[in-house]
Amino acid sequence: MLKNDLILRTLRGEQTERTPVWMMRQAGRYLPEYIVIRNKYGFFERCQTPELACEITIQPVDIVGVDAAILFSDILVVPQAMGLEVQLKENVGPLLPDPIKLASDMARVRVPDVDETLGYVFDAIKLIKQELNDRVPLIGFAGAPWTLLCYMVQGKGSKTFDEAKAFCYAQPEVAHQLLQMITDTTIAYLKGQIKAGADVLQLFDSWGGLLSPTDFENLSLRYIRQIVAAVKDEVPTIVFAKGAWHSLEAMAATGAAGLGIDWCIDPKMARKFAGNNVTLQGNFDPAKLLSPIPVIEAEVKSMLQAFGPGRHIANLGHGILPNVPVAHAQAFVNTVKEFRF
Amino acid sequence: MLKNDLILRTLRGEQTERTPVWMMRQAGRYLPEYIVIRNKYGFFERCQTPELACEITIQPVDIVGVDAAILFSDILVVPQAMGLEVQLKENVGPLLPDPIKLASDMARVRVPDVDETLGYVFDAIKLIKQELNDRVPLIGFAGAPWTLLCYMVQGKGSKTFDEAKAFCYAQPEVAHQLLQMITDTTIAYLKGQIKAGADVLQLFDSWGGLLSPTDFENLSLRYIRQIVAAVKDEVPTIVFAKGAWHSLEAMAATGAAGLGIDWCIDPKMARKFAGNNVTLQGNFDPAKLLSPIPVIEAEVKSMLQAFGPGRHIANLGHGILPNVPVAHAQAFVNTVKEFRF
Repeated sequence: MLKNDLILRTLRGEQTERTPVWMMRQAGRYLPEYIVIRNKYGFFERCQTPELACEITIQPVDIVGVDAAILFSDILVVPQAMGLEVQLKENVGPLLPDPIKLASDMARVRVPDVDETLGYVFDAIKLIKQELNDRVPLIGFAGAPWTLLCYMVQGKGSKTFDEAKAFCYAQPEVAHQLLQMITDTTIAYLKGQIKAGADVLQLFDSWGGLLSPTDFENLSLRYIRQIVAAVKDEVPTIVFAKGAWHSLEAMAATGAAGLGIDWCIDPKMARKFAGNNVTLQGNFDPAKLLSPIPVIEAEVKSMLQAFGPGRHIANLGHGILPNVPVAHAQAFVNTVKEFRF
Repeated sequence: MLKNDLILRTLRGEQTERTPVWMMRQAGRYLPEYIVIRNKYGFFERCQTPELACEITIQPVDIVGVDAAILFSDILVVPQAMGLEVQLKENVGPLLPDPIKLASDMARVRVPDVDETLGYVFDAIKLIKQELNDRVPLIGFAGAPWTLLCYMVQGKGSKTFDEAKAFCYAQPEVAHQLLQMITDTTIAYLKGQIKAGADVLQLFDSWGGLLSPTDFENLSLRYIRQIVAAVKDEVPTIVFAKGAWHSLEAMAATGAAGLGIDWCIDPKMARKFAGNNVTLQGNFDPAKLLSPIPVIEAEVKSMLQAFGPGRHIANLGHGILPNVPVAHAQAFVNTVKEFRF
């Protein structure tokens, strides 16, 4: 039994003694303890070595005191398992040197056996669960199919992912074939994470907000729907499609237990769109953690008031920035933990 | 008298025989005729030489057939006139080597005499008006104060403008002093553009969508409000705060004749938020211009239907991408011009 199951109870819609809190990218570059490990091992070495992934995953639980651990990994392990080469360079971002451009490139992509290709993630989860020793729940995760297609086609980060979009608009049948293959892989991958011990799953659609509402339904949500349907009865699932405020109602209808929101929507409006039967997660502006601590404390309280009691997991609206002082991250977490309605 | 005043009539809310159309960044890198000039002259040389600015401004009127010309210039001429060094490198973006970081940096910023510092813009406008010979209206423009502060503090482009935000959160009094100085300069600058002959003004808040609704009101909209109030009785004004869908109602209340919207909001929902007394401008996904022409034609028609007749200026939801074939831009414009409700 988990000693701290605040997040699980909040996802079930139960009233809790206080709002739970964690931070996206909490296991990462703002922590000096992480930098020490990063300076010794390459990115995929850190992901693929269960002992390293475990140590990094647990760091923010010890140092910042969050109410959940989230697996240290990357959404691009899935395209890698599907047959594409993925390079992750520090301070540069991802590079896929041979992206998908034509229908003929699809021959290089497969729906893999996840135990064979991603077994190291499941091993890491087992080790993390053992080391966490039921202190807090462990969140597993994957990228949403649209966001993974963005990288698999564009080949690198982009402000607009215009080539990924052009691929979908010019070759819709190939695009949907690829999205379905990513979906099938992701379902098997997430089921493996559950089997290994993940208590909660989060699906990251980082680039969902680049699509029009119609394209979001067509290229993203219909695949998210399949994934949520396949896992939601085993563990609670949180969908975070950054910027896709227009589809909160449709995302709630997937059966997801939680929906992430960014800071560009008022919590009350998000609640109005999403309805009352889903937990909202967010939505502190990550840049606001660069403010003086008293400003952070006041703004966190104001955020908590805006969400109101229950059905809320405090979090940032996007990943924590690498230039945030650890004391500021702690101020964020502590303000949530000390707040009572 | 203008031979084509469709945009002016649409901004006044009059019913017109068809929807007018132009494209943000229509005078730019997707046009081979522009590239010829770009290869010969530096960016600021093109802005500061009225003959070059005039030629570039008129190119899309001749080549693509849009219903308005928009002045070739850059929003960063204002920070430059205020005393900051601005470099604009092709394919790299803006660089301000000595950005504002501390209160003491404010000594380097002034509210300039716009005739002295930006007279070249007014000269360009006069020449363009003469060369256009009343074929279509000329749109003048400026950056919104928040977006200009982003560059003046961050010193370059950014996905998050975290340093600009941290500056505002940590030193709000200095931030508001700077925003007011930008506002005062912008009002004088836009009045100069009107005097020189601009028929319409557009205010670009490219980074307004990075702010929470509360911060948008506090750091952006209160200054936009001052600017619109100062010019709206002389020429119709369009406010385009990309991504700030949450404040469409408040932006309509400024008295702006038009509001720009991006493609991430359904036109019907934008109309619901903005009310019926303002013209909406947008909102085609610029990446969709990379689609095959029949797809572009179908999607443009579907956009026009979604907006319905009247109170709509067809445009992109952001600037045209440099890799768009000219024939695709022409297909966009021609589909709008041939469409009838």
